[in-house]
Amino acid sequence: MRRTMIKNLSEKKGQEVKIKCWVDTVRFQGKMAFFDFRDVSGKVQGIIFGKPEVLESAKDLRNEWVVEVSGVINQRPEKNINKDIVNGDVEIEITNIEILNKAEIPFELNEDLNLDVSLDNRPYVLKSDKNRAIFKVQAEIVKGFRNTLNSFGFTEFQAPKIVGGDAEGGAEVYNVEYFKNSASLATSPQLYKQIMVGVFERVFAVGNVFRAEKHSTSRHLNEYSSLDFEMGFIKDHADVMDMFADVMRGIKKNLEENAKAELDFLKAEEILIPDEIPTMKLSEAQVLLEEKLGAENAIGEPDLEPEHERMLCDYAKKELNSDLIFITHYPVSKRPFYTYEDENDKGFTKSFDALFKGVEIVSGGQRRHDYDDLVEGMKMKGLNPDDFKFYLQAFKTGMPPHGGIGLGLERITQKILGLKNVKEAALFPREINRIDTLLNE
Amino acid sequence: MRRTMIKNLSEKKGQEVKIKCWVDTVRFQGKMAFFDFRDVSGKVQGIIFGKPEVLESAKDLRNEWVVEVSGVINQRPEKNINKDIVNGDVEIEITNIEILNKAEIPFELNEDLNLDVSLDNRPYVLKSDKNRAIFKVQAEIVKGFRNTLNSFGFTEFQAPKIVGGDAEGGAEVYNVEYFKNSASLATSPQLYKQIMVGVFERVFAVGNVFRAEKHSTSRHLNEYSSLDFEMGFIKDHADVMDMFADVMRGIKKNLEENAKAELDFLKAEEILIPDEIPTMKLSEAQVLLEEKLGAENAIGEPDLEPEHERMLCDYAKKELNSDLIFITHYPVSKRPFYTYEDENDKGFTKSFDALFKGVEIVSGGQRRHDYDDLVEGMKMKGLNPDDFKFYLQAFKTGMPPHGGIGLGLERITQKILGLKNVKEAALFPREINRIDTLLNE
Repeated sequence: MRRTMIKNLSEKKGQEVKIKCWVDTVRFQGKMAFFDFRDVSGKVQGIIFGKPEVLESAKDLRNEWVVEVSGVINQRPEKNINKDIVNGDVEIEITNIEILNKAEIPFELNEDLNLDVSLDNRPYVLKSDKNRAIFKVQAEIVKGFRNTLNSFGFTEFQAPKIVGGDAEGGAEVYNVEYFKNSASLATSPQLYKQIMVGVFERVFAVGNVFRAEKHSTSRHLNEYSSLDFEMGFIKDHADVMDMFADVMRGIKKNLEENAKAELDFLKAEEILIPDEIPTMKLSEAQVLLEEKLGAENAIGEPDLEPEHERMLCDYAKKELNSDLIFITHYPVSKRPFYTYEDENDKGFTKSFDALFKGVEIVSGGQRRHDYDDLVEGMKMKGLNPDDFKFYLQAFKTGMPPHGGIGLGLERITQKILGLKNVKEAALFPREINRIDTLLNE
Repeated sequence: MRRTMIKNLSEKKGQEVKIKCWVDTVRFQGKMAFFDFRDVSGKVQGIIFGKPEVLESAKDLRNEWVVEVSGVINQRPEKNINKDIVNGDVEIEITNIEILNKAEIPFELNEDLNLDVSLDNRPYVLKSDKNRAIFKVQAEIVKGFRNTLNSFGFTEFQAPKIVGGDAEGGAEVYNVEYFKNSASLATSPQLYKQIMVGVFERVFAVGNVFRAEKHSTSRHLNEYSSLDFEMGFIKDHADVMDMFADVMRGIKKNLEENAKAELDFLKAEEILIPDEIPTMKLSEAQVLLEEKLGAENAIGEPDLEPEHERMLCDYAKKELNSDLIFITHYPVSKRPFYTYEDENDKGFTKSFDALFKGVEIVSGGQRRHDYDDLVEGMKMKGLNPDDFKFYLQAFKTGMPPHGGIGLGLERITQKILGLKNVKEAALFPREINRIDTLLNE
């Protein structure tokens, strides 16, 4: 008999079925046994009643044992029906249980855990209802990102991770022993996606990037998944912001269509993305912060403090019904060498950050596409253009005006779901003292 | 006026349009100028005639300059119509050209190049018709892989690249300086995708993996993109082979739907995947090789020689109309520690290689899901189970029978397109002496 997925069981009333699943809970009571069974699609209640030989075969079962269960789908008595959950109206009356694998668990799966315990026991803890919901949502965020960009004519490519130097010119990098040479791990696919604009005009990449940051905070990861796009033939950074807003709408729509149950289970708030996204220059945001929002020491600073980002997001949500706000025109000094300087606002760049639910999730902007201008940008940052000869080829041989963004997958997952720590949104977070298990110092 | 993509121009006869593009070719002839313009969607012929001021503005244009061209779409004279190409029946009569960026090229873009020149000039050379076709096909291979697995209920996840040790236990690894510790780059997402089977039953990952192999051959890359899936609740390795065959069918279908023009341009042969994929044990393949195919020194060996793989593929194609052939039951000694040993054929594993058009593109099989059996596998390979404590948690806490595969993206791209060297199918191949530019020894 073929396996039936648990979510489809309530369509099988009166029929014999076979399911393959985990024992989610088990309770023995005299000559009866009660179970919840779980597969990736859902849960269902099971019962052994009046079948001593089945009871005998099931007597060792404990939580998380892996089983193949045969039985008949019965309608539950009216008083026991739970209309709020999948299969709340049925149970499986068990005729046979075959054990596929045993299990021994360190603690109950759905306990509330502190983060250290959760990370120490990751392979087990990821199976919890909460974690399965978080990472299903994360998979659907990636799908929404990709499908939206594909629909706008973007081509996906795989960016290399072993690189000669630090693309962003400033981030802390991991060194790799590369045969007789030394190399480093990419902090971003930036230079490659610019090269690829010369090839396919519109490109995106999904992949891990690496930041050797020594601090361990609730905002940082040492390895994270970056969702990057880059588009050619733009007028300016506003085209990039428009595209990113469309990507966010695509992600939201995909989540509502394919992860509604998980969003509800995790009590995620609705994502507010109005037709017009609030957009202001950094200098305007700083005046707003001091004059209306009660902040201090904002005006004239080259960047926003985390507290300022929170205040601006609160403002955008309350006053403008938006979870997203664009801050543009960061000073040249605070942005990477490839950032385009605004001809009409010298010293400031056609760059932006996207703040979302209190925190920066995206950095983006227009890039320098003119060869001489780009070399000038390198020199201003004290970089040696000779170190970028390969990259510069793309700018010598016909590069359109272009721009793009980088979006941190774990961070957007965290903010959509209202998780406290970005590590809760990372499957296997790398920390200064942890690669899966704790490292020795 | 909005930009029209070049592929849509023949629908605009008699209309004014604006295109944004590269100068693909240019020829000045007295008071006239003739162009081919190229954007990501196609090419079109352009002409300047009887417009001295436009001619003057265009006089510096050379190949690969980036331009915005306004003009009128004219039907070409009957004798000049080329029905075999997109826009072969139209040309754009240019009324204005705006220069977006200039270019200076090292050689003609579509020249035949040797591999070293191609790699030295990658950011430029990737723009050639051939390379754009290769990497469009590659993007569609990934899309076909992903869409097929999504349709079968697989969940995508991002596997970490910085790892504590070598998952495959044998491949050569790159060391990473990880703060005060040492770490390495993942040679495969294997251990993580097995852990994720405990979470989502069916999972896949697309990402780069790293092999510190010192030899530089036409078959090897030091960093490549691996397409991996893993599925729970299987009966044995045959379920995995069936799923992989379906994935290949999905890739083929997606290519035919979305990259037909590129396959034709590259003269790719049709991919033959019959309903029944030829499948034989290694020992049977070795007998076939010696008794029917004229090979020597095959029987009794623990693995196939590259020449044997080619002979078996030739046989499968000619005799069984298949580009794909599965070889199963490699000896325990030749497979990683997690490979499932066949109860009915001791010393041999429920593993397989998929050979495709002459070469192995996939390694896969059923895995050991029983904790004790897995620990036994580690010990047999001389590995210390204490080094795998994190991974083993998944096997202690309820792991279903499962199996999966890893597919090299560049290698399958190479074979589908009949390219001589796998590096031709890698955007930015890493070699022992090259990370984009040549390294100093």
